Amino acid sequence: MSEIKNYIASNQERFIGELIDLLKIPSVSADKAYAKDVHEAARYVADKLQEAGADKVEICQTAGYPIVYGEKLLDSSLPTVLVYGHYDVQPADPIELWTSPPFEPVVKDGKIYARGASDDKGQMYMHIKAFELMMRNGGVPCNVKFMIEGEEEVGSDNLETFVRANTERLSCDVVLISDTALISLDNPSITSGLRGLSYLEVEVTGPNRDLHSGIYGGAVANPINVLASMIASLHDENGAVNIPGFYEAVEKVSEEERALMAKAPFSLEEYKDHLDIEDVQGEKGYSTLERTSIRPTLDVNGIWGGYIGEGAKTVLPSKAFAKISMRLVPNQDSASITNLFQEHFTSIAPKSVQVIVRPHHGGEAAVTPTNSVAYKAAEKAMETTFGKRPIPLRSGGSIPIVTMFEKVLGIKTVLMGFGLDSDAIHSPNEHYAIANYLKGIETIPYFFKNFTEMNS
Amino acid sequence: MSEIKNYIASNQERFIGELIDLLKIPSVSADKAYAKDVHEAARYVADKLQEAGADKVEICQTAGYPIVYGEKLLDSSLPTVLVYGHYDVQPADPIELWTSPPFEPVVKDGKIYARGASDDKGQMYMHIKAFELMMRNGGVPCNVKFMIEGEEEVGSDNLETFVRANTERLSCDVVLISDTALISLDNPSITSGLRGLSYLEVEVTGPNRDLHSGIYGGAVANPINVLASMIASLHDENGAVNIPGFYEAVEKVSEEERALMAKAPFSLEEYKDHLDIEDVQGEKGYSTLERTSIRPTLDVNGIWGGYIGEGAKTVLPSKAFAKISMRLVPNQDSASITNLFQEHFTSIAPKSVQVIVRPHHGGEAAVTPTNSVAYKAAEKAMETTFGKRPIPLRSGGSIPIVTMFEKVLGIKTVLMGFGLDSDAIHSPNEHYAIANYLKGIETIPYFFKNFTEMNS
Repeated sequence: MSEIKNYIASNQERFIGELIDLLKIPSVSADKAYAKDVHEAARYVADKLQEAGADKVEICQTAGYPIVYGEKLLDSSLPTVLVYGHYDVQPADPIELWTSPPFEPVVKDGKIYARGASDDKGQMYMHIKAFELMMRNGGVPCNVKFMIEGEEEVGSDNLETFVRANTERLSCDVVLISDTALISLDNPSITSGLRGLSYLEVEVTGPNRDLHSGIYGGAVANPINVLASMIASLHDENGAVNIPGFYEAVEKVSEEERALMAKAPFSLEEYKDHLDIEDVQGEKGYSTLERTSIRPTLDVNGIWGGYIGEGAKTVLPSKAFAKISMRLVPNQDSASITNLFQEHFTSIAPKSVQVIVRPHHGGEAAVTPTNSVAYKAAEKAMETTFGKRPIPLRSGGSIPIVTMFEKVLGIKTVLMGFGLDSDAIHSPNEHYAIANYLKGIETIPYFFKNFTEMNS
Repeated sequence: MSEIKNYIASNQERFIGELIDLLKIPSVSADKAYAKDVHEAARYVADKLQEAGADKVEICQTAGYPIVYGEKLLDSSLPTVLVYGHYDVQPADPIELWTSPPFEPVVKDGKIYARGASDDKGQMYMHIKAFELMMRNGGVPCNVKFMIEGEEEVGSDNLETFVRANTERLSCDVVLISDTALISLDNPSITSGLRGLSYLEVEVTGPNRDLHSGIYGGAVANPINVLASMIASLHDENGAVNIPGFYEAVEKVSEEERALMAKAPFSLEEYKDHLDIEDVQGEKGYSTLERTSIRPTLDVNGIWGGYIGEGAKTVLPSKAFAKISMRLVPNQDSASITNLFQEHFTSIAPKSVQVIVRPHHGGEAAVTPTNSVAYKAAEKAMETTFGKRPIPLRSGGSIPIVTMFEKVLGIKTVLMGFGLDSDAIHSPNEHYAIANYLKGIETIPYFFKNFTEMNS
């Protein structure tokens, strides 16, 4: 299949240019100010799908942002791959930490810098270009469907309704998603699991108004001090989450799987250097890779209370707040954990304060089987293009729609991502290496070929 | 001395009107935007001192805001009282919690609502009006000097230089200050001690940039969680401050004095009701009044880090911050405690983070003797006008200049305040009861009379 390499070589400047055009559209789904842009990104994706050769391309309206659909159906006896991706992006703030404007893509050191470069415009657009490549070189080997949404970064609120209303149209044998990372180009990997999420906000109220800390300090509970103590108590001395029942449902990972994980190439020194930290910190008895994949965690994502301006104010504040989220592993039910947290957090509040816990959103953990035909097809495709067999690796992030697809469509997902953990997704200076982008475009056609052959 | 009551009755509308005019000037010393207003307040005070009959009134320039000086000297054989007060006020924020604009004073239920109404414009202005009253009714009985500054709310940075440069001009037998509270009009009290202060800001840094909490959460120290744990550890299970050496120098208050304090009228139920709290919280083994007066404390005055906007962001932040202050009691040296805190806080930081501690400012605790002529003069004056002997009471707040006066001028202060703890000083809706304002104007002339007689 040297035509793959040839086609990429002849068209790579255009592939990069088209992605850059897409990245220029600030399709921030979280901010209504960008509504026009989000719609424009949907239109761009639809146009490009059409140009690449997809049939029945449609910008499907939902209660929120639209879902772009397209397909190329050959024969019902052939397997069907449903490609999922998203064209919306995270907000760019803190904007002042970007070295170039987030929606004016620049190429530097072989990387494209822009919000959404890796998550997920760059990775999603690989599929449209790989599709084009196949269509111009003999056609796709099996049925292909595309479903590209615009609300992934805000919880995919309207996706399930759409999927439930279109089960026939979306019927397939596997869902293929590129929205995750591999270890490195030298060490390919396929994501074999994702963590779930439970996100909450807490509010601690002490006195009914801000007080003078000299007059009341020492006698009236300070909600910041109380909140700090409550947060501190959420981890025990071994770094484990200290909420009764939290680990009850946690899937026990076999020693064999842990031994396999331990073989993944990983340099703790490089990891620490990369983050400028003297030491890592986490649950005792688990490695860094285990802590971010097979173990659930609890992090405070934001905290605020009292006087936070310049200089000093001797205030004993009325209120303190925190945003707290937990990453969950298979079998931990998001709603149950949210309940556990609410009950526990309220129960540990001293009588001197009042506590409110407000759930934000959640999602379930997912495990993708490594013995399925689809996984094998992806494994073989990457082995062909990377020259090395990829290893299965659990990821720490969450893609709630993976479990939704399984629930509604009854099918499993393959998470064949080409990003890197260092892509700074959700952070300032997000980027995507052109080498990874092109490697993805090269690998995807092999997946289709392998999946078709293995199913026949 | 029925002329006192008569003069007040005839002039009280003007007294209130003049205070309201002063309160309309937003003399916020912490914010450069109000620089013109701070100078205008100084000019207003100088004018009113002059009108009341003071000689040698001068707006004395300093490296910061000016100090207003004025005097009425009769005879060097008579005692001299130096009145200290301040014309600057705290910032008004959070402005949205005021029910009327902070610099548009309104009278409601017998109280004047405005920033600075109690702290300290209202209390300082009582002295100017009491001085006028004496001058119009036979003259002051002893020498009087006024020193009214404009930087009390920002640390009185230039006051010591001024005092040192003017020791001759400021020489006196007692410093009289009204910048504290009494228990109530029914239960008069004189402040017999103030707490000192050590105020610091801490910065905890984890990774060198904000991270995705899914990808790194659980393996990389979260600076908010770490800061929360560090703050939590600053108190032990008995509510005592858990910094080695913190209590070493603390003055041990005798059982007799504690027994006397326990007799101060105080309703825990009313206190809790007033603050809408179910329970108080503080150091075990001490009463609420003791916790806010004779015991040192530690409060977080502000905390911030991570995502604090609307909705959810799954960030593992790079940094977290807190402003922390300690109220100190006699014999605890502010600089030493600041050092202790710095050393301790840095020492408890885990290797996974970096901690910076920045001292803001401090001040020493003070005890004013209750057996001095000046105290007795104040006690007798209040007994005359309140019909009840005031009790000595330690206050929880800090007025750093009290120790400075003692150090530089070698003289003690009398803290004869007429505010109430419920005046909401430093908070939204600060107010000062007109009854307290007038009671102060009535009491001050008795203090001058008593002090002169007791010294003769």
